[in-house]
Amino acid sequence: MSTILIFGHKNPDTDTITSAISMSYLQNQLGLKTEAVALGAPNEETQFALDYFKVAAPRIIERASDETKQVMLVDHNEAQQSVDDIKDVEVLAVVDHHRIANFETANPLYYRAEPVGCTATILYKMYQENDIAIPKEIAGLMLSAIVSDTLLFKSPTCTHQDEKVAKLLAEIADVNLEEYGLEMLKAGTNLATKTDEEILDLDAKSFTMNGKIVRIGQVNTVDVAEVLARQASLEALMTEKNAKDGFDLFVLVITNILDSDSVVLAIGEEIAAVEKAFNVTLENHTALLPGVVSRKKQVVPQLTEAF
Amino acid sequence: MSTILIFGHKNPDTDTITSAISMSYLQNQLGLKTEAVALGAPNEETQFALDYFKVAAPRIIERASDETKQVMLVDHNEAQQSVDDIKDVEVLAVVDHHRIANFETANPLYYRAEPVGCTATILYKMYQENDIAIPKEIAGLMLSAIVSDTLLFKSPTCTHQDEKVAKLLAEIADVNLEEYGLEMLKAGTNLATKTDEEILDLDAKSFTMNGKIVRIGQVNTVDVAEVLARQASLEALMTEKNAKDGFDLFVLVITNILDSDSVVLAIGEEIAAVEKAFNVTLENHTALLPGVVSRKKQVVPQLTEAF
Repeated sequence: MSTILIFGHKNPDTDTITSAISMSYLQNQLGLKTEAVALGAPNEETQFALDYFKVAAPRIIERASDETKQVMLVDHNEAQQSVDDIKDVEVLAVVDHHRIANFETANPLYYRAEPVGCTATILYKMYQENDIAIPKEIAGLMLSAIVSDTLLFKSPTCTHQDEKVAKLLAEIADVNLEEYGLEMLKAGTNLATKTDEEILDLDAKSFTMNGKIVRIGQVNTVDVAEVLARQASLEALMTEKNAKDGFDLFVLVITNILDSDSVVLAIGEEIAAVEKAFNVTLENHTALLPGVVSRKKQVVPQLTEAF
Repeated sequence: MSTILIFGHKNPDTDTITSAISMSYLQNQLGLKTEAVALGAPNEETQFALDYFKVAAPRIIERASDETKQVMLVDHNEAQQSVDDIKDVEVLAVVDHHRIANFETANPLYYRAEPVGCTATILYKMYQENDIAIPKEIAGLMLSAIVSDTLLFKSPTCTHQDEKVAKLLAEIADVNLEEYGLEMLKAGTNLATKTDEEILDLDAKSFTMNGKIVRIGQVNTVDVAEVLARQASLEALMTEKNAKDGFDLFVLVITNILDSDSVVLAIGEEIAAVEKAFNVTLENHTALLPGVVSRKKQVVPQLTEAF
């Protein structure tokens, strides 16, 4: 029987990469033969966490069906965020904390989603329920995922469970939660060395909303002005991508992780949806979204509703 | 805040009715304000279980959004099997053991599905995980659900977990598992007093398969010939329903619970899919399907694949 591949979404972030690793370790302890893989290279934040806890980055795959018939998904379920040939493999299990959409199976499966801030928080429970001890380096990676997804507990997606689990994991991983967390987050905000292409792709996901294709990217920074200084060339590339990939709307959410708010930059035929969703008037294609830091909770539902 | 309504699928069976009751009790113990309701009246098998354990049948609703903004689903997820105005309410949680299809949310939610024989088996775990004691009558209803969905452990959908949980529940409910189970199953096979309409609707569900609408009903019996004696009038009504409700195919699975096989009766424009799915030749619109007792595992995936 071929090895079951476990992976998170395209444009992987820290939760997606580390949850594949944590899920694979858990499933292997439970007797399955699985391998954590990834649909892209780790970003700088994730690489910081992997280096810190001395864990190798997962192998990158382009397709799954060439080497396996069965997969498990972490941190996503929507087909357009998954491996391109997802329709050609059987999804055995999903562990996720997002909305469910554009996901369909022919057979019953294990599906575990909870409305918490991070996939790692759900995986922690699964370790507990199965009485599997969490190794120090896995605890460190799970902790990194929670810090990343909740911006050190500042995001409105953060629940008491995430914070409680993060503290327990910090003990196992033997790190100072605040110090390590801020150091890791800052490692991910170095945008100066990134091309426009990299900024737009960093954490971008596509969503289908009432038949329209909406691309939503997000970058974290400690200096929003630094990103907006590149607005003209970013806009040109967003327009180009809309035409090439058929996006009806491209939204870039530029989040200040120190102030906990965001500036939105919107390009495309459906930009009116952005004004409707956030009750703002776009000026020069941008608007300040006070208090908005979470794409999942403060951007996607509002845009879905607007469409 | 309005009471959260919890319900199973249309044409309710024993798992769907009793799991709504068990889920509601659990959620209320956890501090929420919920009510178990149903999308139809209990069938004779379910009524037998409710009477035996002295539990009132849930109130029947036609719509949810008139009285609540939030619901929880048990034993189903596909929109066409749910309340008609499901799009107008928020789904907070799903506990299910079926494939996922035609299900979409705007927000993250609690979704717990496992590939086991019965929703009640998953609910049993949730009681354990939350340290909530199962009252005697709830244990009796959960046990009835497992017996019903697994045909007393004979269905291929039955897992070791279902059987193990059923035995633990039988102790709490203080019943002899085999004796009570067979008595309950037989209570559900009295088809002589049922109209053709009732037989076709008893446990029927609609499925969307590659754009076609497929209606699949199932009846349990200890006398297949008794059902086939009514074939002409059943066929006439199936044809009428196809025209009226836009079904491309109507399949009635007549299952002998003693022999553990089924006769399929198929009517509609897409009956070729039945021959392809089961590798049989329909004679007089019927074919024997040896060993087939589970719609979910032995009928729906095969038809989905054929389409």
